[in-house]
Amino acid sequence: MDLPTFADVLVAAERIRPHVHRTPVITCESLDRLAGARLFCKCENLQKVGAFKARGATNAVFALSEEVARRGVATHSSGNHAAALARAARLRGIPAHVVMPASAPPVKRRAVEGYGGLITTCEPTLAARETTLAAVVAATGATFVHPYNDPLVIAGQGSAALELLAEVPDLDLVMAPVGGGGLLSGTVLAVTGLSPRTRVVGAEPAAADDARQSLELGRIVPSLDPQTVADGLRTCLGELTFAILRGRVEGILTAEEHEIVAAMRLVWERMKLVVEPSAAVPLAALLAHRDRLAGLRVGIILSGGNVDLDRLPW
Amino acid sequence: MDLPTFADVLVAAERIRPHVHRTPVITCESLDRLAGARLFCKCENLQKVGAFKARGATNAVFALSEEVARRGVATHSSGNHAAALARAARLRGIPAHVVMPASAPPVKRRAVEGYGGLITTCEPTLAARETTLAAVVAATGATFVHPYNDPLVIAGQGSAALELLAEVPDLDLVMAPVGGGGLLSGTVLAVTGLSPRTRVVGAEPAAADDARQSLELGRIVPSLDPQTVADGLRTCLGELTFAILRGRVEGILTAEEHEIVAAMRLVWERMKLVVEPSAAVPLAALLAHRDRLAGLRVGIILSGGNVDLDRLPW
Repeated sequence: MDLPTFADVLVAAERIRPHVHRTPVITCESLDRLAGARLFCKCENLQKVGAFKARGATNAVFALSEEVARRGVATHSSGNHAAALARAARLRGIPAHVVMPASAPPVKRRAVEGYGGLITTCEPTLAARETTLAAVVAATGATFVHPYNDPLVIAGQGSAALELLAEVPDLDLVMAPVGGGGLLSGTVLAVTGLSPRTRVVGAEPAAADDARQSLELGRIVPSLDPQTVADGLRTCLGELTFAILRGRVEGILTAEEHEIVAAMRLVWERMKLVVEPSAAVPLAALLAHRDRLAGLRVGIILSGGNVDLDRLPW
Repeated sequence: MDLPTFADVLVAAERIRPHVHRTPVITCESLDRLAGARLFCKCENLQKVGAFKARGATNAVFALSEEVARRGVATHSSGNHAAALARAARLRGIPAHVVMPASAPPVKRRAVEGYGGLITTCEPTLAARETTLAAVVAATGATFVHPYNDPLVIAGQGSAALELLAEVPDLDLVMAPVGGGGLLSGTVLAVTGLSPRTRVVGAEPAAADDARQSLELGRIVPSLDPQTVADGLRTCLGELTFAILRGRVEGILTAEEHEIVAAMRLVWERMKLVVEPSAAVPLAALLAHRDRLAGLRVGIILSGGNVDLDRLPW
């Protein structure tokens, strides 16, 4: 697959504009004081389906030709991407097939079903997931939309940073969390195209620092069931995201689990925003490394807000 | 005191513009479906100090002449107004005196102190509060800024609805919570001036429906220590707010306690916004009376987001 480019991000932004929110950028003096920097938070927790994933999935669905689209789309994510894909497919009037392990939490099944997604249950193993997905695709002719290792998905995710930079042009640094790397890759494309002097830094849990290792070692390090409260960041990089990130991301900063929970709580208390643990990782990493970022103007992508209010981590 | 006018709201909006956030207006399809109406939420929970109170207090402080301002400002609120007044005073470089009962929660003391407010402690009775405030004013020459029964405060609060209508001009209805009535009065002034066809409806807890009674009976009904989770709405109307509201507000809709908690949780879950119970009362009232508001375009002022994350009401 060809790597997506800045032009693809621009096209994606136009394509998805009617279907997603242009989310607000929010500042907070008391967080600025804590960070010793000036923060501009792009609120993708306020995005459709509660996460930036709406951007990439919508771009992938609306980029399909009529003929191909008619056969539907499919994926095997059980998280925000599945809900986002189901929503985008419904907007286009086509089926979305989602392969989910039988062990997936009912709340995630309901989210997908709520958007009209068609769920196929499989055993909770990677092999079963891939076999089942292949069977669904073979039976339906649906187009597989990977949650992050897909040029259209990456380009769509980049539209968040595009909007952020359009609103706050003179950023020194943009930070985004990194799991599979779709958001961070799209961010790299947007920032490089729009504001080459602005640095891009990823953030991930110290307990799941496979992206940091991958970029340091020059090869994709697998993510072996890491234990982190940031459940959106447990996956490893894909070939496309690795290729985009290497050499173009300045680095990956990490945060400890307690720092992630504390940062999440800070965002709730000070900014009055519901964010999920994964979304708090950049702020946690920034606070943990504040001496290295003092005085800078930092854009942060608050990636999502889907969290179980009955199981808060504090 | 003369009643404030629409012109006062316009002046207030200009005066406070450098010092407060222009908060975003957020929509949510899934809440629209539940409500059977189209909702436009003005996010004053994302305002400075976490509540619309920043608007009125800032207007009152910055309207003072140099000479009067130098002697400082004073109030006896222990809630968001006190924090907002302390913040505004600090911005202007003048002292803010806040009279608080010894029984006030430490978190509220810290909020005021965090903005540089000077706290004078008193016994937890209405009489002690007023005597102490009078003594502080006599000793310092500070200007008393009432939390709601003040023309400048009311005009300042009206700037929220002004911004809402500027962004979404064709609203059928605007709803705001009513405690002392400052926010609802300012809303009435703004809506009447900018969009006379738009109706204005207040919302309050059924367990603290003194404003509803006051408007029905044509006299201010006192609020006698009502028990409601919406702790910002326990006060009764003042003479100014009563005079503005009577005859110009279409009515007050009420919500039961469990409906308020459910609506608050809905805003957290679906909109990803941290709101305090008082801020959820308009949505709760709208959902409880949805048959009367079906199909309308409704502006809702989400009044604030200051809540103890360790004591959530669900």
